[in-house]
Amino acid sequence: MRVLGIDPGLTRCGVGVVDGSIGRSLSLTAAGVVRSSAEDDLPTRLLGIERGIDAWLDTHDPDAVAVERVFAQHNVSTVMGTAQASAVAITRAARRGLPVAMHTPSEVKAAITGSGRAEKAQVQHMVARVLRLATAPKPADAADAVALSVCHIWRGGAQERMARAQQEFARKVELARQARGR
Amino acid sequence: MRVLGIDPGLTRCGVGVVDGSIGRSLSLTAAGVVRSSAEDDLPTRLLGIERGIDAWLDTHDPDAVAVERVFAQHNVSTVMGTAQASAVAITRAARRGLPVAMHTPSEVKAAITGSGRAEKAQVQHMVARVLRLATAPKPADAADAVALSVCHIWRGGAQERMARAQQEFARKVELARQARGR
Repeated sequence: MRVLGIDPGLTRCGVGVVDGSIGRSLSLTAAGVVRSSAEDDLPTRLLGIERGIDAWLDTHDPDAVAVERVFAQHNVSTVMGTAQASAVAITRAARRGLPVAMHTPSEVKAAITGSGRAEKAQVQHMVARVLRLATAPKPADAADAVALSVCHIWRGGAQERMARAQQEFARKVELARQARGR
Repeated sequence: MRVLGIDPGLTRCGVGVVDGSIGRSLSLTAAGVVRSSAEDDLPTRLLGIERGIDAWLDTHDPDAVAVERVFAQHNVSTVMGTAQASAVAITRAARRGLPVAMHTPSEVKAAITGSGRAEKAQVQHMVARVLRLATAPKPADAADAVALSVCHIWRGGAQERMARAQQEFARKVELARQARGR
């Protein structure tokens, strides 16, 4: 499974592509940043982010996209731009029919370190370790996006296993029902 | 000049198409709402808004798009969705190379009633009057979008006249400079 993680922002969107599946080793395929210039007007900036995200989707052809969930409580001066950048990222992925998941920062921290209140440095340390890298990807936005991808594979894997277990259980119940009926 | 006004919202985007130019009478071509269902997930909702806005752009082929500028100070529970819907609307218009302008609610009120603190009912009354309608378009989101279009034509017209006057002034200065040089 290949996941494109996106840490949205109007000035910098972190992007990170991770390959792997739950229970197997993960590998970092690419990480970087999609930028827009504060000197441009908002339509130009959003269009630039759209083109940047499209390029990452074209180049890496992920199976799923994970986007950081934005909250209104955060930094009020940047939250509108973050929400707008996230909308562009979500829409580009959805337009291709890709599954788009959203994870909160504390879900990412919990998935990667075991604690939803872990320090950023601890998350980056674990990301580097899990991906067998000497250091976490740079800049920080790229590292956050990679952490989102790792979180998505691990959480998604757990969710898939649970869904499979439920299907299996339902199948057994149905078989038992049929056996009783016979 | 044909303007598509968009009052963004995740559940309801008001849309309104107005034809006209500054100094001439304006006419309402269409008004309505692009909706998304709160039962769907966010990617599905944003994609639905994208398709709805595309359909309005296709059908009415406007010369410009005016979008209400969103502020973080407003209702915190809905502001994120409003920001995300506005990003989708702005990006769809920009992608077609259309000029996209943003006007704040008080700029709209001031353009239409002369007061940036006018009541909503007063704005709607004036919109109906200017467009020679018996009542303002319904629902309220559609009326707000129509008000945006009217505001855009009137403000844009003023801005265009000022730009033309400045060009004319610059041309005369240049002619005078050339005349002195001769």
